[in-house]
Amino acid sequence: MITHETQFRVPYGDVDRMGFFYHSHYVELFDMGRTELMRSIGLSNAEIEAGGVMLPVLKVEVEYRNPAYYDDLLTVRTTLREMPGVRIKFDYEVLRENGERITTGAVTLAFMHAGTKSACRPPKVLLERLAPFFV
Amino acid sequence: MITHETQFRVPYGDVDRMGFFYHSHYVELFDMGRTELMRSIGLSNAEIEAGGVMLPVLKVEVEYRNPAYYDDLLTVRTTLREMPGVRIKFDYEVLRENGERITTGAVTLAFMHAGTKSACRPPKVLLERLAPFFV
Amino acid sequence: MITHETQFRVPYGDVDRMGFFYHSHYVELFDMGRTELMRSIGLSNAEIEAGGVMLPVLKVEVEYRNPAYYDDLLTVRTTLREMPGVRIKFDYEVLRENGERITTGAVTLAFMHAGTKSACRPPKVLLERLAPFFV
Amino acid sequence: MITHETQFRVPYGDVDRMGFFYHSHYVELFDMGRTELMRSIGLSNAEIEAGGVMLPVLKVEVEYRNPAYYDDLLTVRTTLREMPGVRIKFDYEVLRENGERITTGAVTLAFMHAGTKSACRPPKVLLERLAPFFV
Repeated sequence: MITHETQFRVPYGDVDRMGFFYHSHYVELFDMGRTELMRSIGLSNAEIEAGGVMLPVLKVEVEYRNPAYYDDLLTVRTTLREMPGVRIKFDYEVLRENGERITTGAVTLAFMHAGTKSACRPPKVLLERLAPFFV
Repeated sequence: MITHETQFRVPYGDVDRMGFFYHSHYVELFDMGRTELMRSIGLSNAEIEAGGVMLPVLKVEVEYRNPAYYDDLLTVRTTLREMPGVRIKFDYEVLRENGERITTGAVTLAFMHAGTKSACRPPKVLLERLAPFFV
Repeated sequence: MITHETQFRVPYGDVDRMGFFYHSHYVELFDMGRTELMRSIGLSNAEIEAGGVMLPVLKVEVEYRNPAYYDDLLTVRTTLREMPGVRIKFDYEVLRENGERITTGAVTLAFMHAGTKSACRPPKVLLERLAPFFV
Repeated sequence: MITHETQFRVPYGDVDRMGFFYHSHYVELFDMGRTELMRSIGLSNAEIEAGGVMLPVLKVEVEYRNPAYYDDLLTVRTTLREMPGVRIKFDYEVLRENGERITTGAVTLAFMHAGTKSACRPPKVLLERLAPFFV
């Protein structure tokens, strides 16, 4: 298992009429979360794409427990519980500074050859970097 | 049951590096879909909010089946299958012009008193407008 | 001169804490405005890009005169006053349903070879389609 | 004069079909830049709004000099050159990690009473916090 935390400050324009951080933006936070988890093990999406592999999103689930407000400093906790196969699934928690849970969720992505657009195995370099966390 | 269709043209800035309509934007399409379904029965979110009731989102699920591309004209088909209780759930299909299914999903919202921030029953006017579709 | 009008409904998530349509979104409306102006003369950005020409934005100016609110139906009036050279400049007015001016602005773009990334002349097909409007 | 720098990582979904950080997002960066400049002198927008003063945007100008790409770490340099009167104007530079200038721009905002919606003087606390930088 590998977990990574990254922070995000709620911007003015991302808050809706209720004063809440607009609900679609959590999906973007989840993207940021897995990007930073990957970076923490020395891998960038850009690198993976340069290797001819794309990661289209297959499924997103979000549960909203408490609203976040303008200027809140949120923690996005991203967890990879299983070694990826043809799919990779990240679990998420978004927390307020006081530790309160704001949202939880999960995102599943596929590995896809950029050229053939067909499903493929995860890049070897990704599996190598992840292996130490799944012993 | 009540179903409503509305259209959306994929804008330049909403497409990601893969050339796909970026996945978080479907959540915004879903919002647009239920807004337009409500408008089709003569009710606006603005009106409901003016009546002191807010509809925070509780849960979002999206399944991505095919990518949409820049300038695609998408149809958002929004369906309300059950009369709302303290919650209201909308089901979604997003279709390409040729009828191909792009994404499917569901969004659940709660009814909440704007003042007390506590759960409440749906506004009477909403129930009245919906009743003819659920006989 | 060529002018085109297109409409846009202000979505829930695009309104900020002041209740105003958030100011950066007008820049996206301007993009939509020129896309629809081009479509009205039978040309799509996608087509121009397929011909190996890209249009990076050089300059954006926006003046905010009145706020727009959630669910307002805005008209984006896009005007091309001069035949394009190596640059193309669009002027904009955004109007409320009652005709009130919300914002005005201008966007200047360059024509650029997708391959060499160097400045280039506008595609011949664009000049041909525009010519009748500039006699 | 007061200058503040803050950093921003270009997210996957904010890049357009040309592979460029989509041009409207710089307007959001400018918002983030002035928010962080204010925070650096111990003031938050939230505080100013709590005092009954809003800052609607009057004018935005952006000049695009070089594109930014996915995953670039950008520096937003925000400068306030003059003590605010009924208006406040921020100047901006966005820089790549190697110091290259990506965009420049300026944003002018007004001070407005939240209640009466009429123009007003800047809050006293803001003037006091800014004074040491303008001697």
